[in-house]
Amino acid sequence: MKAAHEWTASDMLAAVSGGRITVRALIESCLARISARDDEVRAWLWLNADALGQADRLDALPADRRGRLHGLPIGVKDVFDTADMPTTHNSPLYQGFRPAADAAAVSLLRAEGAVLIGKTDTTEFAAAGRNAATGNPNDLTRTSGGSSAGSAAAVADFHVPLALATQTGGSTIRPAAFCGVYGFKPSAHRVSREGVKLYSISFDTVGWMARSVADIALLAVTFGLTERLRAPPSNDILTIGLTTGPHLSLLEPEALQALDVAEARLLAAGHRVTRHDLPPAFQTLDLWHRTVLQREGAQAFRALARTQAADLHDDFHRLVENRDNRSLAELNAAYHGIAGAQRSFDDIASRFDVILAPSAPGIAPLGRKPGNPIFNALWTALGVPCLNLPVGGLRDVSMPIGVTAIAMRFDDVALLEAGRRIAPLLAGVSSP
Amino acid sequence: MKAAHEWTASDMLAAVSGGRITVRALIESCLARISARDDEVRAWLWLNADALGQADRLDALPADRRGRLHGLPIGVKDVFDTADMPTTHNSPLYQGFRPAADAAAVSLLRAEGAVLIGKTDTTEFAAAGRNAATGNPNDLTRTSGGSSAGSAAAVADFHVPLALATQTGGSTIRPAAFCGVYGFKPSAHRVSREGVKLYSISFDTVGWMARSVADIALLAVTFGLTERLRAPPSNDILTIGLTTGPHLSLLEPEALQALDVAEARLLAAGHRVTRHDLPPAFQTLDLWHRTVLQREGAQAFRALARTQAADLHDDFHRLVENRDNRSLAELNAAYHGIAGAQRSFDDIASRFDVILAPSAPGIAPLGRKPGNPIFNALWTALGVPCLNLPVGGLRDVSMPIGVTAIAMRFDDVALLEAGRRIAPLLAGVSSP
Repeated sequence: MKAAHEWTASDMLAAVSGGRITVRALIESCLARISARDDEVRAWLWLNADALGQADRLDALPADRRGRLHGLPIGVKDVFDTADMPTTHNSPLYQGFRPAADAAAVSLLRAEGAVLIGKTDTTEFAAAGRNAATGNPNDLTRTSGGSSAGSAAAVADFHVPLALATQTGGSTIRPAAFCGVYGFKPSAHRVSREGVKLYSISFDTVGWMARSVADIALLAVTFGLTERLRAPPSNDILTIGLTTGPHLSLLEPEALQALDVAEARLLAAGHRVTRHDLPPAFQTLDLWHRTVLQREGAQAFRALARTQAADLHDDFHRLVENRDNRSLAELNAAYHGIAGAQRSFDDIASRFDVILAPSAPGIAPLGRKPGNPIFNALWTALGVPCLNLPVGGLRDVSMPIGVTAIAMRFDDVALLEAGRRIAPLLAGVSSP
Repeated sequence: MKAAHEWTASDMLAAVSGGRITVRALIESCLARISARDDEVRAWLWLNADALGQADRLDALPADRRGRLHGLPIGVKDVFDTADMPTTHNSPLYQGFRPAADAAAVSLLRAEGAVLIGKTDTTEFAAAGRNAATGNPNDLTRTSGGSSAGSAAAVADFHVPLALATQTGGSTIRPAAFCGVYGFKPSAHRVSREGVKLYSISFDTVGWMARSVADIALLAVTFGLTERLRAPPSNDILTIGLTTGPHLSLLEPEALQALDVAEARLLAAGHRVTRHDLPPAFQTLDLWHRTVLQREGAQAFRALARTQAADLHDDFHRLVENRDNRSLAELNAAYHGIAGAQRSFDDIASRFDVILAPSAPGIAPLGRKPGNPIFNALWTALGVPCLNLPVGGLRDVSMPIGVTAIAMRFDDVALLEAGRRIAPLLAGVSSP
């Protein structure tokens, strides 16, 4: 029998509500796992000293006052404001900083009875500068990705079943792929980013990670993502598009193998799979994304560059000073280009139930640099929902690798439903 | 001779740096004005008890350590986080709330040596719910507009020469027009909104108000809006487009008169003025704007609706519950429609140095409701920079009225330059 910390969030909820475990025992199991592992993994920047106190208070709550996430241990990326724990953004500028209020997303989790286990490590400001210290639980010499490094590792290594993340380029999907967990970036502007450190107002997106798609869906409901964009598929056969994206030359053999294996398994299960090439304009999405990121990022870090210049990492001064010389005309063209591609992609995505693409160039690189976000940035720019699905059982591949499932913008519900159906096929196990 | 609190910010800076007044004396003059007037005007929710202490510390600073805004008294709309004053959003949910850090915009003002005089009244959360208590200094039975009611009144009534505001629909331009001051909403995503209460991620924009365009430009420099989009006009004659906007039937006689007078004075000064009708699609911008506002607003207030349901104004429950039934398909279409109009408007705006349009349906209405934002929402949706210019000396019009000067998105510098040139003509005085 699995230890409690190894259960999915859905199993934990069922066990607690069925009286088979107390919240205290559940949290103790997670804390014991963290204690045994985190000297090596280094997923956490801060652990909530009151976690067991909160567990006891939740255990004492009558059943009719329990929330949707009653007793669930959840990790929070350290770019979300938390009123009861420091929020450092992994930056020397914010050591010991204690916000006066929770970020909106944190507040919703707390209101539903989640136990916030602590704050997870991140690339500085979820942007650049300092790398997370986190190692990949599958091979500690490798990165767990970034910027949501600690959230991915904490979920992969069974410290918590769920963790909040963010994505501005590839900061949720890429670490999820490198660590072998499910990672979800909702459609743009659909989950409040209030109380999350700002980097790019257009692209910053609250996301989260879990060890099953059902667990991903739990938080989607909490955040109000319950409405369909389109009618559900009329039968059990899914129409699936498969694309390498516009940067084929950057794909490593493991990523190509993952796509091939995904295709073969989906076809074998009776789904319709079509290889699809994105329009030529999509090759420019990465440049447009970087242009917007750099110019919006310049404004986001201007105040820190003025008030704490000496301590601010040069990566952020580079943004503020616009050292890459992106003109306002280029910025305007980038917004227009992205908007045009969003419209084109609606047409493409409407022809499929889901589209699959690479989540990263390959497996997690050695070291602590977070890796290349080029296979994520285009989808972030498009504002479409993205779900990393681990592809298991690959020949000669010992590290996790994933594909990104993508749906039409605002079709988050359909994406999670399709993801739930194909996840077991891709994982290569009977019930993930 | 004018009292110090009546000076423009630029004159205050010159007087302080020329040794003709101390920062303390300047702040004392403003505080005396507030003390004499604010029982009636009610522009302020909070006054900074340390303002004179800050003034003394600024007076003691050696000249080479003084900032760009050294000693300038500035008001801050009470939706910006301030670490040394409560931030209430004029909401019962946030009474006495004290953020741990300044909003990015506040932090930049402070770093440049501004003295934050206090927090100005606002429509609740700069959105809906509770109206500001502020009266229009020109006629206290009338509204000063909204949501930035207190900022507009404080500047108009000579409490401070500059005040921070925000605009999501018409929250900067409309109160500026009603109160007879200059109000500026920069291009979208060009000034950091970090630490400002979130309403609509796409539209929330930091703006500000002043009693001259030169003073507006002072803060534009502070916030880094110093880069041109296009080359400056090659001669002294401006090419000006004039439009009633797509809602002609809603315009009251005073607003039509203001446009006519503006046209006549600009022509008389030798500028080229062309009447321009916006394309038919622009009639839908208001609906698209409302659709995005309502769906983004739903996510912004979801956490408060969950955690403080009983105390949250029904206006916000209405948003969260999507009682107006805006579907995700309509939301998607709204984003696409706005993006298409943004591209069309680039073509239109590129043919003019500046475009003039009504700032409001007419003069400030009686009461405390903030008035109709329909003449502002389309420009906010387009993300273009907007500058309210008061039109003075109208026949039989005893209340202030304004026109909005508009430029191509990201051409903020050009807009302020053009605004500076035409403001005296519109004001009907020789040197405003």
